[in-house]
Amino acid sequence: MNPRADPADDFLLQEPWLPVCIDGCQLLAKSWFSDAEYCVLLTDMQGVWEERMDTAAIERRAQELNRRLRAAVQAFFSHLREAAEPWLSGGGGGEAQMCVWRRDGVVTLKLKSELAGLPFHWEFRCSPAPVALVCSQLVRPLLAMSRLLHRQLEEQGELLARKDQEIQDYRENGATLSRERLQTDVFNKQLYTEDFIQKNLPLLRSDPSDAPGFNADLQRLYAAVAAPHKRRRPQETHGDPDRTEPPEPPAQTTVIGPGGGDPENQNPSGQVGPDGAAQAAAVGATRPAERQSSRPKKKKVGLFR
Amino acid sequence: MNPRADPADDFLLQEPWLPVCIDGCQLLAKSWFSDAEYCVLLTDMQGVWEERMDTAAIERRAQELNRRLRAAVQAFFSHLREAAEPWLSGGGGGEAQMCVWRRDGVVTLKLKSELAGLPFHWEFRCSPAPVALVCSQLVRPLLAMSRLLHRQLEEQGELLARKDQEIQDYRENGATLSRERLQTDVFNKQLYTEDFIQKNLPLLRSDPSDAPGFNADLQRLYAAVAAPHKRRRPQETHGDPDRTEPPEPPAQTTVIGPGGGDPENQNPSGQVGPDGAAQAAAVGATRPAERQSSRPKKKKVGLFR
Repeated sequence: MNPRADPADDFLLQEPWLPVCIDGCQLLAKSWFSDAEYCVLLTDMQGVWEERMDTAAIERRAQELNRRLRAAVQAFFSHLREAAEPWLSGGGGGEAQMCVWRRDGVVTLKLKSELAGLPFHWEFRCSPAPVALVCSQLVRPLLAMSRLLHRQLEEQGELLARKDQEIQDYRENGATLSRERLQTDVFNKQLYTEDFIQKNLPLLRSDPSDAPGFNADLQRLYAAVAAPHKRRRPQETHGDPDRTEPPEPPAQTTVIGPGGGDPENQNPSGQVGPDGAAQAAAVGATRPAERQSSRPKKKKVGLFR
Repeated sequence: MNPRADPADDFLLQEPWLPVCIDGCQLLAKSWFSDAEYCVLLTDMQGVWEERMDTAAIERRAQELNRRLRAAVQAFFSHLREAAEPWLSGGGGGEAQMCVWRRDGVVTLKLKSELAGLPFHWEFRCSPAPVALVCSQLVRPLLAMSRLLHRQLEEQGELLARKDQEIQDYRENGATLSRERLQTDVFNKQLYTEDFIQKNLPLLRSDPSDAPGFNADLQRLYAAVAAPHKRRRPQETHGDPDRTEPPEPPAQTTVIGPGGGDPENQNPSGQVGPDGAAQAAAVGATRPAERQSSRPKKKKVGLFR
């Protein structure tokens, strides 16, 4: 993997997993484009794939797929980005066409568009992602989300109990409702939760809406809990995770720091807390703004000879 | 991988991820023991490892690690199980000792106990798990949990709003509280949620309790959403995930069925609904009972010569 892609990890961690439908394939995608680099992550929840491309690699592939292209990478990268991002953001492709090929475990997104009056081809060749990446981009954030949502449920349950106490006090003092239909039942957390699971689990399974999985609220929550850490341990660079594990002493390789209670907090130093506020602030992170800032402004003409 | 291990997948999917602390290492573990086979899954939320052993492999390793052992596998497997399960269930090891070694990406749990008056050694040699396993055992269940918890939050929010309407009606009809402290504020979902995230995200990060991650409620919810499907598609057997992907047509390889809206519903046929009820019933699944049923009852004497 390309070590220069590390900065992309921090951006990617704040990106939501966007549902995209390409060529009939339902996927979740994350993408990050800088001036002349990009990183794309894809998952169908059965597998996870990624491609990280630096400027030189992009230039080589552009030549491979567009024989007559003679422009510097910056000259066509903005076109590539503008043609691909709508697809990778779930918005469909506009004039550009995209299809999906899967072979030998590689998921390739083939893009065809027009640049300076000539066809422009691109392929995002996404290879199976290492488990370390799956853990950092999906497992730890999703577990943190579940823990936060569960904690919020507990708190709302207590709030419901307090409102029941208030209602009971009104009733005991002889208060009556002007409209009977406004009367609510006393909230019983355990019965309510069991009943909810029984009713909603089948619905969730058969619900074809917001496929596959993250609605807007969950995307915001994901962005909040997944906001990157200051430092990154070797396992979180996306090379061979095996290679990055120090052999001895064994304990130190898996000991989890004081914040071990929170899986998505298992950063290199086990440091916790201080960055929490910053990460909470990420609730309002504005993806479009980030992207604008690094969007190249070059003209896209005269690129072919 | 061992295709005979497939039955283990269904059991494992209903097992909770139990926090275990071995030799100072904080891990989450799942294990399944049959009469003379076992499967162990481990994760530190940075990586995921597994070992699946059938009877023949267990017999070979027993000979390798215990030169003087001459007993049939069934004769010492029950001892192995009884010595290992307390460790793998997070209960500590009793008389047996266990330590963790990590080398070349393999996490080895070394067990030392006493059998028929002689030392008995075992090693659980867990290799990096394929992404398909990480998706089926962690990613899809965790996303389903987040979606269910979020849906429950929405419903409880509506319930709070209805109680506020009831309270408002009492007040408008002149009702007063006998104790001022019983009065609650009107529930504002958006403000409440933003405030909750701001306050609780840092706490979650710095909370060293219930390490690492699943409390009892989340474990029950995990068991409910992760209950196995009737059939399994090739990607979900734990061989090389690449090998299992049909090359063409590309669309069919990633198209998600009518239940695509729910990632952990992406089963072979995309079939949905009917099994939902059965899976909801898994809320009350009793792990101990399952284990009892397959626990061998052989005596553990005269195994060495």
